[in-house]
Amino acid sequence: MRGSAIARIIGKTTQSFPHEFDPNVRMWVFEEMVGNEKLSDIINTQHENVKYLPGKKIPTNVVAVPDLLEACDQANILVFVVPHQFVRKICQQLDGKLCSDVHVISLIKGLAAPYAEKLGGVKLISDEIKEILKVNVSVLMGANLAHEVAADDFCEATIGCKTKAQDGGYLKRLFNTDNFRINVVEDAHTVELCGALKNIVGCAAGFTDGLGYGDNTKAAVIRIGLIEMTRFIEHFYPGSNLTTFFESCGVADLITTCYGGRNRKVCEAFVKSNKTLQEVEKELLGGQSAQGPLTADEVYFMTQRSNLSDKYPLFTAVHRICKGEMKASEMISCIRDQPEYP
Amino acid sequence: MRGSAIARIIGKTTQSFPHEFDPNVRMWVFEEMVGNEKLSDIINTQHENVKYLPGKKIPTNVVAVPDLLEACDQANILVFVVPHQFVRKICQQLDGKLCSDVHVISLIKGLAAPYAEKLGGVKLISDEIKEILKVNVSVLMGANLAHEVAADDFCEATIGCKTKAQDGGYLKRLFNTDNFRINVVEDAHTVELCGALKNIVGCAAGFTDGLGYGDNTKAAVIRIGLIEMTRFIEHFYPGSNLTTFFESCGVADLITTCYGGRNRKVCEAFVKSNKTLQEVEKELLGGQSAQGPLTADEVYFMTQRSNLSDKYPLFTAVHRICKGEMKASEMISCIRDQPEYP
Repeated sequence: MRGSAIARIIGKTTQSFPHEFDPNVRMWVFEEMVGNEKLSDIINTQHENVKYLPGKKIPTNVVAVPDLLEACDQANILVFVVPHQFVRKICQQLDGKLCSDVHVISLIKGLAAPYAEKLGGVKLISDEIKEILKVNVSVLMGANLAHEVAADDFCEATIGCKTKAQDGGYLKRLFNTDNFRINVVEDAHTVELCGALKNIVGCAAGFTDGLGYGDNTKAAVIRIGLIEMTRFIEHFYPGSNLTTFFESCGVADLITTCYGGRNRKVCEAFVKSNKTLQEVEKELLGGQSAQGPLTADEVYFMTQRSNLSDKYPLFTAVHRICKGEMKASEMISCIRDQPEYP
Repeated sequence: MRGSAIARIIGKTTQSFPHEFDPNVRMWVFEEMVGNEKLSDIINTQHENVKYLPGKKIPTNVVAVPDLLEACDQANILVFVVPHQFVRKICQQLDGKLCSDVHVISLIKGLAAPYAEKLGGVKLISDEIKEILKVNVSVLMGANLAHEVAADDFCEATIGCKTKAQDGGYLKRLFNTDNFRINVVEDAHTVELCGALKNIVGCAAGFTDGLGYGDNTKAAVIRIGLIEMTRFIEHFYPGSNLTTFFESCGVADLITTCYGGRNRKVCEAFVKSNKTLQEVEKELLGGQSAQGPLTADEVYFMTQRSNLSDKYPLFTAVHRICKGEMKASEMISCIRDQPEYP
């Protein structure tokens, strides 16, 4: 769904700037059969992703291509919108087949998991892409629940790139519409990490909801989560800019995640049931994993190895609750003595 | 209710630090009859504010005093928890009757309205108290919906004082409990202004809810509101610290206001009805005024006089919608071109 929602935007913006962008937008589609027809054929004739985004027309200049290499052939800009677990494999297939000056922009939230234990630390998805493809990678994050983006509801997003003067302008023009407002910052690591870490806070918000706490407590949990996000990023990726947290990728995405996101939903249901987290995920997400518990696991590995877990009482509590090592009702007593910011 | 909720906290903390605080806590109560009994007598015999906070025991060391001067006589610390429109009159009554070294801490959210037009600018309630009483004034703000504080739900609050080294310690000990966690900062103006300005954003969130927008749009509106708060404070009260917005008085109170507060509620109902804002306030708040529209009015006066209204598209839109000069449905088109932070 997310890919099609973004394709609708890019289909439009490339038409608005035909001198800057080739309006022939290729969209790689993982081929599958819908009834007797190939999904890519349906998209190219009906201009609608009837399976993942029914009812929303995709501009006719967007062409579905089921072959990955063909979709990326001679491309100058690649927009990555795929489940995070496929990134590595996709990059390996693309390795050596791309234009040397290709610019990748990743919309994938989460970390390149599970790596922390193997590699001795978390790995950003953008860094994984860079490592394999040896290209310039930017990221786009924000409060962008896909079905609302697809419905053309007003929202915002943040692009994090290495050099705003060089890449900020065209990247903004590629994504910015009246209802999808883009700000560009150079603090790409912070932008990307916000998109991953907020899911841990979303879990904590879900526990809070599941336990029946009120607005004050939930706001305190979200705030403490935000503080731990800033602290983690500043410690492990020094040089982040505090103003980046005021962008859509920061507070806005955090709020959306803590009120409307699926990590929140899964964790609320988990607290209210007698089931394991895996059982609840199976019921609610149809077998997919929520990102929050995975990210909490990775982050815990790093903070614990650095003897810093006590500086991240909320992150640590979420990890332990998800692992079944602690009851959700003990979370508040863990965060009571949250060290003051900074 | 708020006064009694805070009295329960202070009754407890003063007992915990008897060498530092006199555990005889006087609580000024605006006298009224409840059945055949005086409210102050009921509080002093039943140790419960049966009218405004029924069912919650107030520690026996808190004594209700109906006479203002008697309540404040020889006090070293005065905690102000009164409706903002009474501040001036109360201060005038106290003028010249207080210990010279008395420290006032104000929990009153809002601005000393309506002053902007008369005085040429907004006035902080703490500044109004200082001006009349010529004493040191600190503030306490945060995500503290009163009924949840009274229920001993976990929450946080921020104290803003002039000199943390001098006043931070005892002020923290006076308010801090296991379920009411205090951080102290020196950026008192920012703390107080957050408590006032967030109500404008709460109105905008209410319009968003009333119009049926989703999570992305609401998060964007809240974020843009936060940006305008930082911008307003930095411009009109220079020297604020960005980290203060990460305290409970900042993001946390903003979130609570935008999801649970009464400005949100009134503005949602206003959009959904064909009534004026005043009619909706009358129905929902029993004749009281919501703070947000008043604050939007004051703030608009200042930004407009400085030719800066276009830097505050959300604040300006809220003002105009509340005044009936603009439809709520036009708000989003006003904020589309929000100037980037900073």
